[in-house]
Amino acid sequence: MWRDRRFLDLVGIEHPIVLAPMAGYVGPALTIAVSTAGGLGSVPCATLSPDAARAEISVIRQQTDRPLNVNFFCHMQTPPDLVRDAAWQARMAGYYAEYGIEPAPASPSGQLTPFGEAMCALMEELRPRVVSFHFGLPEARFRQRLKQVGCLIIGCATTVREARWLQAEGVDAIIAQGAEAGGHRGMFMSDDVTTQVGSMALIPQVVDAVTVPVIAAGGIADARGVAAAFMLGASAMQLGTAYLRCPEAKTPAAYRAALAAGADDATALTNIMTGRPARAIVNRVIRELGPMNAAAPAFPGAAAALAPLSANPKAGASGEFSGFWSGQAARLARAIPAEELTLSLARETLARLAG
Amino acid sequence: MWRDRRFLDLVGIEHPIVLAPMAGYVGPALTIAVSTAGGLGSVPCATLSPDAARAEISVIRQQTDRPLNVNFFCHMQTPPDLVRDAAWQARMAGYYAEYGIEPAPASPSGQLTPFGEAMCALMEELRPRVVSFHFGLPEARFRQRLKQVGCLIIGCATTVREARWLQAEGVDAIIAQGAEAGGHRGMFMSDDVTTQVGSMALIPQVVDAVTVPVIAAGGIADARGVAAAFMLGASAMQLGTAYLRCPEAKTPAAYRAALAAGADDATALTNIMTGRPARAIVNRVIRELGPMNAAAPAFPGAAAALAPLSANPKAGASGEFSGFWSGQAARLARAIPAEELTLSLARETLARLAG
Repeated sequence: MWRDRRFLDLVGIEHPIVLAPMAGYVGPALTIAVSTAGGLGSVPCATLSPDAARAEISVIRQQTDRPLNVNFFCHMQTPPDLVRDAAWQARMAGYYAEYGIEPAPASPSGQLTPFGEAMCALMEELRPRVVSFHFGLPEARFRQRLKQVGCLIIGCATTVREARWLQAEGVDAIIAQGAEAGGHRGMFMSDDVTTQVGSMALIPQVVDAVTVPVIAAGGIADARGVAAAFMLGASAMQLGTAYLRCPEAKTPAAYRAALAAGADDATALTNIMTGRPARAIVNRVIRELGPMNAAAPAFPGAAAALAPLSANPKAGASGEFSGFWSGQAARLARAIPAEELTLSLARETLARLAG
Repeated sequence: MWRDRRFLDLVGIEHPIVLAPMAGYVGPALTIAVSTAGGLGSVPCATLSPDAARAEISVIRQQTDRPLNVNFFCHMQTPPDLVRDAAWQARMAGYYAEYGIEPAPASPSGQLTPFGEAMCALMEELRPRVVSFHFGLPEARFRQRLKQVGCLIIGCATTVREARWLQAEGVDAIIAQGAEAGGHRGMFMSDDVTTQVGSMALIPQVVDAVTVPVIAAGGIADARGVAAAFMLGASAMQLGTAYLRCPEAKTPAAYRAALAAGADDATALTNIMTGRPARAIVNRVIRELGPMNAAAPAFPGAAAALAPLSANPKAGASGEFSGFWSGQAARLARAIPAEELTLSLARETLARLAG
């Protein structure tokens, strides 16, 4: 049925469709739906505590015993920089005044704990089929422990150089994240967005550079993209934006509306939302302060100054201060249940490949 | 043999491979080779005088009677701006000093005549099968005259909005130029490079938006890319960088060497070489003054200040001051004769599509 079975057989799934682990927007219902359809359901744990991650995975496992992909961030943490944070907050003064917001005094910007001991112990206990990482890989000792309990490890590359490094570090599969992809760039060997590579060029070059299966991501939102990625040599495809309009996604109404209206050229790579480059729908604050701004605090600190704006009823509802992550193919996404979407992606891709 | 025959039948060619009309690097030998192999040979006339264009086409027609695509720029000309030109030249002072170059006094920056009366009259006389335009379209009266003598007209879009406009203006086919493409972006309804769209996302959205055949360009340099573009709904593919290492290309040695060494992330969109955004291999001057610089004179004026550097034996040979245009898939290009390359692209694509 599928010509390339490398990733399917490795992970033990039916269709080569991976749900992108979109932190904050993928909950158990979406994960379960994709897994039930035979794709690989993902559990974004980057912003969860170990207890919350345990609860999330437990809910999923009550509904399905199919393979799961549990995803973490492994960014470098940077020391607090109150001066930088205060300067960034000062840039928002006009917006705060416009919406009558009294900003909290600058405090050490929010930290986000990367994958470490507690999550590693939890994974050793829960043993998901796949543990995947964004922004590089955690220390080798953690990866060894995951491998010892039978987890497969997947890393994300935005360049051939990153893909080669991931393979040398022993990952079992590599996501090739083309520049079209929504959300945070997985880049970890460069912070230069001007040289990021589109899927059409990146996928075959990563396929040529490594021997492990390659999962294509970026700009793929219907069967045409899935089939195209196969032609480029990918063994599976990771889709994110395509699932954000499914009823199971936790996407708020304003975000759904922005996606539904999404034009091909509505997004840009911006670092002003969190401090790391991510593709989002261009809004007022991105136009006025970005898309890239060297003054933005380090990840995830830049988010703190925007938080009171996106939480404000009026400013928040406008979408002009929120990070509405989106890939460049949002227009191709369909507002249908995720199981139906996954099955139709598989069916339509097979028909397209058969000619 | 080919499933999608729309472009093939429209133009009267055998294989859906279009040679990108790379001004300065495509001469008759390369055009003839691609046409002879059954692709669409292109004749870049953007930088030629009508007499030179006539001579070029005459040489080609002595060797082949296959359809030809004659390409022009139709940029808006801007009035001379000596102050801006002088300021830009002043930015090069350190480089001039380093190489002992005595810069000429600032003079009105070089002008490049867009398609107009003289070229239109020449096309009416020579009647190539296809006349294609970059940077928009010329006035309707010129297009009517071309259509009256039987020429097909092709325009280039970098967004869905540009594609819709081109179709409304009556073009016969549309190039969807993904952000991976080397050389000048065809963009004409926006000058914002941060929202330019990758091929994987752009091609299906353009296909959905128009009824004329779509020619995919950007990041395609081997049979995998050609097959992928078919899956996305394109009827033909335009390849440029893939042909730059062919012996028939007029690519200088230093440029060939840079392409041969080309990594996936070696290029960026820059306006410092000519004043318009174009994808080039990142070199010293792009790193130090770009990649985008708001002070660069309007197209093609920015080139004047760099000319003495690229013409200098030492600075020029280093490649650090030259616009070495390249797409993001240069690594996939092969240094083989163009007829062999075209035929093998066709053969390998058909094999790939057959599974």
